[in-house]
Amino acid sequence: MSREQTLRAWRAYIEGSGRLMSELERSMKVECDMDMGDFNVLLVLSEAPGKRLRMGDLARELSFAPGRLSYRAGVLEKRGWITRGTSGNDGRVVWAELTDAGSRALRKTRPVHARLVDRLMLDYLSEEDAAALLRIFPPLDERLRDLHI
Amino acid sequence: MSREQTLRAWRAYIEGSGRLMSELERSMKVECDMDMGDFNVLLVLSEAPGKRLRMGDLARELSFAPGRLSYRAGVLEKRGWITRGTSGNDGRVVWAELTDAGSRALRKTRPVHARLVDRLMLDYLSEEDAAALLRIFPPLDERLRDLHI
Repeated sequence: MSREQTLRAWRAYIEGSGRLMSELERSMKVECDMDMGDFNVLLVLSEAPGKRLRMGDLARELSFAPGRLSYRAGVLEKRGWITRGTSGNDGRVVWAELTDAGSRALRKTRPVHARLVDRLMLDYLSEEDAAALLRIFPPLDERLRDLHI
Repeated sequence: MSREQTLRAWRAYIEGSGRLMSELERSMKVECDMDMGDFNVLLVLSEAPGKRLRMGDLARELSFAPGRLSYRAGVLEKRGWITRGTSGNDGRVVWAELTDAGSRALRKTRPVHARLVDRLMLDYLSEEDAAALLRIFPPLDERLRDLHI
């Protein structure tokens, strides 16, 4: 494949993905009154042992800058969906924990999110396409995680 | 392919892409003192006829919410990279135009951006992978554009 074609592939991927993210963001706000960022915080916490994570680990998991996570965590705490607490001798380790209300909010929004994802992308994905995504993206994710260890 | 595998493919795609966007954003800030959003505004304007677009068309092209574009356009105007002006009888159509300084800024950052994209993703993409991206993403982009006509 020529360099030109590879760059066309990049451009198609980055533009299509950007538009998909915007559409998901917009639809989740309208249908669930929830930011995609907030949805992802709740999702990641729901999958963690004891439904809690250190804020630093949560930021890494979500690839959020720490400032952005602090802000979102404040919003989620106000809505009663997470709590934050400290541990350690000096209380410097901050944890975030999913509340029961947070679990319920996630349970209510997940099917809406899944329907959106199907309707926008997965309904159009062939087996071959899905296999390509599974070939391309897990190693990419791993490389990017390794950059900041 | 099972539903479970399709969902794994989705998750890999969405997480890998999110991490890639964060890394591009971070590196462009460090290496070029430029947001990815700003880079994309300059890039889209540079490709438009006369290097200018109506703000509404620019927002659609970038899949930015109008408020977000207004804000970024203010930042870019302050840096001297774009100008905004009005046209039409009532002056209600606002245009954004790339300045010479904006063209120079884009010309300086494009090779840095290209190197980052290569190093983070394209260097690892097989021909088959690139072909898959070209199969999946242009129709997705088109479907999403059609949603808001």
